[in-house]
Amino acid sequence: QAHAKSDNFTAEQLSQVADIKKQALESDLAWNLVESLTTEVGPRMPGTPGDKAGVAWAVAQFKAMGFDKVWTEPATFPKWIRYSESAAVVSPAPQTLHITALGNSISTPKEGIEAQVIEFENLAELENAADNAAKGKIVFINYRMDRDRDGNGYGPAVKARSRGAVVAAQKGAVGYVMRSVSTATHRFAHTGGSHYEEGVTKIVSSAISNADADQLHRLVALGKPVTININVQAKSMGEGTSYNVIGEFTGSEFPNEHVLIGGHLDSWDLGTGALDDGAGIAITMAAAKFATLKGQPKRSIRVVLFAAEEFGLWGAKAYAKANEKTLSNIVAAAESDFGADKIWAFESNVHASSLPLVSEIAAMLKPLNVEYIANNSARNGPDLIPLRPFKVPAFALSQDGTDYFDYHHTADDTLDKIDPAKLRHNVASYAIFAYMAANAKTRIIGK
Amino acid sequence: QAHAKSDNFTAEQLSQVADIKKQALESDLAWNLVESLTTEVGPRMPGTPGDKAGVAWAVAQFKAMGFDKVWTEPATFPKWIRYSESAAVVSPAPQTLHITALGNSISTPKEGIEAQVIEFENLAELENAADNAAKGKIVFINYRMDRDRDGNGYGPAVKARSRGAVVAAQKGAVGYVMRSVSTATHRFAHTGGSHYEEGVTKIVSSAISNADADQLHRLVALGKPVTININVQAKSMGEGTSYNVIGEFTGSEFPNEHVLIGGHLDSWDLGTGALDDGAGIAITMAAAKFATLKGQPKRSIRVVLFAAEEFGLWGAKAYAKANEKTLSNIVAAAESDFGADKIWAFESNVHASSLPLVSEIAAMLKPLNVEYIANNSARNGPDLIPLRPFKVPAFALSQDGTDYFDYHHTADDTLDKIDPAKLRHNVASYAIFAYMAANAKTRIIGK
Ligand SMILES: [Zn+2]
Ligand SMILES: [Zn+2]
Ligand SMILES: [Zn+2]
Ligand SMILES: [Zn+2]
Repeated sequence: QAHAKSDNFTAEQLSQVADIKKQALESDLAWNLVESLTTEVGPRMPGTPGDKAGVAWAVAQFKAMGFDKVWTEPATFPKWIRYSESAAVVSPAPQTLHITALGNSISTPKEGIEAQVIEFENLAELENAADNAAKGKIVFINYRMDRDRDGNGYGPAVKARSRGAVVAAQKGAVGYVMRSVSTATHRFAHTGGSHYEEGVTKIVSSAISNADADQLHRLVALGKPVTININVQAKSMGEGTSYNVIGEFTGSEFPNEHVLIGGHLDSWDLGTGALDDGAGIAITMAAAKFATLKGQPKRSIRVVLFAAEEFGLWGAKAYAKANEKTLSNIVAAAESDFGADKIWAFESNVHASSLPLVSEIAAMLKPLNVEYIANNSARNGPDLIPLRPFKVPAFALSQDGTDYFDYHHTADDTLDKIDPAKLRHNVASYAIFAYMAANAKTRIIGK
Repeated sequence: QAHAKSDNFTAEQLSQVADIKKQALESDLAWNLVESLTTEVGPRMPGTPGDKAGVAWAVAQFKAMGFDKVWTEPATFPKWIRYSESAAVVSPAPQTLHITALGNSISTPKEGIEAQVIEFENLAELENAADNAAKGKIVFINYRMDRDRDGNGYGPAVKARSRGAVVAAQKGAVGYVMRSVSTATHRFAHTGGSHYEEGVTKIVSSAISNADADQLHRLVALGKPVTININVQAKSMGEGTSYNVIGEFTGSEFPNEHVLIGGHLDSWDLGTGALDDGAGIAITMAAAKFATLKGQPKRSIRVVLFAAEEFGLWGAKAYAKANEKTLSNIVAAAESDFGADKIWAFESNVHASSLPLVSEIAAMLKPLNVEYIANNSARNGPDLIPLRPFKVPAFALSQDGTDYFDYHHTADDTLDKIDPAKLRHNVASYAIFAYMAANAKTRIIGK
C-alpha cells in the first residue's frame, strides 16, 4: 500500500493507520461494551445505585481491556431523584397526558396541581407577557424543535427547558409544562436539566410529548377553558458524589502528553442511556484500544468517562479543576456525545502551526466519508467546555444527529436504537484520530 | 368525460362517480371527524366515560352531517378496567420494564408479584414443556411478530396473547409476560384481549415492549437467575353496556336494501384510538356523505359504528342478533379497521352472478391505484364476522398495514400518525364503492 509523503508520520505509521481502520471496522468491541453497559447496568442517573454500578463497570472494563492506568476522581453535584410523574386533562375531555418532570423540578402536592392552561408559542412570548398574565394558571410553551443534522434546533428549544419555569412563575403561574425538546413522532416526553432562580417562586417544571403537546394545543384552540392536573413526585437530596472514570494507555516517548477522548458515563433515568451516552463511552474506549493495537503510543491516550454531565457538567468541572496543572499536556481532545450515527465531519480548533498535521489526519478520515471542515473553529463536546480557557487543542468528530432528538432523554433511548455498523464507523474514525494525534512527530498546539 | 359502456350504470352515474372521487380527494371531512373524535372525546374503552362520550359524539355527528336516520342499539359485554401497571427487573440489574396489562388480566397483589423469569421462544415451546416446567416462575414468551403489508404476522403472534396466561398457569407459572404483538421499534407495550379458562388458575397476563423484551432476553442469556416484579391493578366489573351507533342515508327505490360500511367506535385506553379505529369511523362516515353527494341513493347507505370490538366483537354480535331478519337486505358490507394507510387492494366475496358488477366497481377504483384481487374470497373486517353465516355480500378494501402494528393498541396510537392525504384516498375509495353498490341497476347477491 503506497502513501503520500508525510511530514508528520513515517510510512510505517501510515500503514498502521490503514490496518487499525480495517480492524476497527470489523470489530464489535464497542457494541459489546454498550450492550453490556445498558443491559447489565441500565440507567445511570447521577447518585443512584445505577450510577455507582456504572462506575464499577467502567473500572472493571478498563482493566479487562488492558489499559495501563485506571483511576477515578470524585465529583459532587446537587442530587435529584424522580419518584413518579403523571398528568391528565381534567376538562373538557378527560385523558392522560404523557409527561416527565424536568431535572431539578420540585414536587407537586400529593394530589397534584390542577389549574387552567395558558398557552404560549415560545419563551419570548411568555417573557413579553404582562406581569400577571399567567396568574393562577399552568403555563404551556408549545415551541417545536427543528430537525437538523448538527442539532442546531436544540439551542432555541432548550431555553424553554432551562428557564421556562422561572419565567412562568414570574408571570404568576402555578405550574409549568412545555412541549418536549424533541423531533420525535412517538409519544415519549423528553426530560433534561432545568433551573430555578433565587427569589423566584419554585413551580413544578415538566415536559409533555409532541403528540400530547399537539393534543393540548388542539384542546386550547377549541376556545373553552382547559384544565389539567400535573402530579410530580421528586426530591432534591443535597450533595451527591460520583466519579469520573479514567483509563490511560501510557505513552512511550512523551507519557505526560496525552490525547483525551471520552464521553459521559451518567445518563437520565428514563431510558438505559444507550445513545446518550453509552455509545460515546463505548466508541472512545474501543477507539483507544484500536489506536494502541500496534503497540505503545508515543504520547499517552486517555479516555475520560465524565460523571454527572446531565445534571450540569459536574464531572467535567471537577476534572478541569483536579487536573488544572496538566491540562496543557493535552495534545488533542474530543468528546463523543451525540448518539451513534455515522461521523460526517472533522474539524479542529488549534494553533495555526498545527494545521498541516490536522489536514493529514483529515486526509486519513476522508475515505470513511468524513468531510474536513477547514474553518478551525470546532465546538467541542459539553464535557470539554470547562477546558476551553486552557487552550486545549479541541476537535469535533461530528456525528449525523438528524435522528438524535427523536430519542434523547426519553425512555426510548435503548440499545436497539444503535446500528452496530455505524458504531464501528465511529470507532474507526476515533481510533485513527487518536493514533495520529498520539504518534505524530510533533505535538498539536492549542490556540 | 367519456366512459366505457356499462351494463349496470348509466353514463350519468359514471360521471357522478368521477365527481364524487374528485371532491372526496379534496375534502378534509374525514380528518375533521377523526381529529374531533380523538381530541374532544379521546380514549374510548368500552364501558368508560370516554366510551359514553364517543356514543354521544357519533349521534351528534351523524345528525349534523344530515344522515336521514340516526339510532343506537345496545350491546353488553364483560367490563374490565385498568388502574395501573408497572414492572421492573429486580436482579441482577434493577431497571424499569415498560409493561401493559392485557385485557381481562387479574390484578397482582398490591406489592406486585416477584419471581424468576423462565423464557420460551413461542407458545408452542411452552405448550410442549413438561407439566411443572414453569413452577413458581414468571413465563416470558419472546416471539417476535413479522412485519407484513396484510398483517399476516398478527395471527401467529396473537395466540400467545389470547392463551399465553392459560398455558403458563398450566405449567405452574405464577405470572405471564410476553413480547408485545408488535412490529415497533419504539418502547411502548401493546395491549389487547386475553382470556382465562374455566378450571385453570388465573395469573397476571401482560406484555412488554420490543425493547424491553430484547433487554429481558439479554439478561436471561447472561445465565444467572433473573427476577422481575410485575404490578398490575385492574378489575373485572361485571356486565357493561354500550351502543352501536348507526346512521343511514335512505334509498329512494329500495330503501330496505342497503350498503353497510363502518368501523368500531370503541378503542383501548392507552392511546386515543386514532388508527384503531377512529380512522375507520371517519373514513366510512365521510364516504357515506360523499356517496350521497349527488342526491338520494337508490338503495340505502348505512354506516354502523360498532361497540366493544376490542373486548370481543360484542357490538357486532349484538348487531347481527338484533338485525337478523334484515341481514339479507345487505347488498354490500365492508369494514375499515386496519389504520389509515392507502387502500391497495379490492376484493369481493359474492355470488358469481354479481361478479360483472364487482369488476365494474374495481375498474373505477383502479385509477386510485387500488388493485383488483379477483379471487372472490375476501375476508371482511372483524365486526362483519358475525354476519358470515348470513351470506352477506362481503368486500375488502385492503389498506396497506405495513406500519399498523407499530402503533396498534399502544399509547402511541394518536392523531399525528394519520396522514390526511391517505385518509382522503380511503374516503374516495369507500365513497366510490358505496355509491356504485347502492346505485347499480341490480343488487349484489351473497354466496
Ligand atoms: Zn449527553
Ligand atoms: Zn443528555
Ligand atoms: Zn380495530
Ligand atoms: Zn384493536
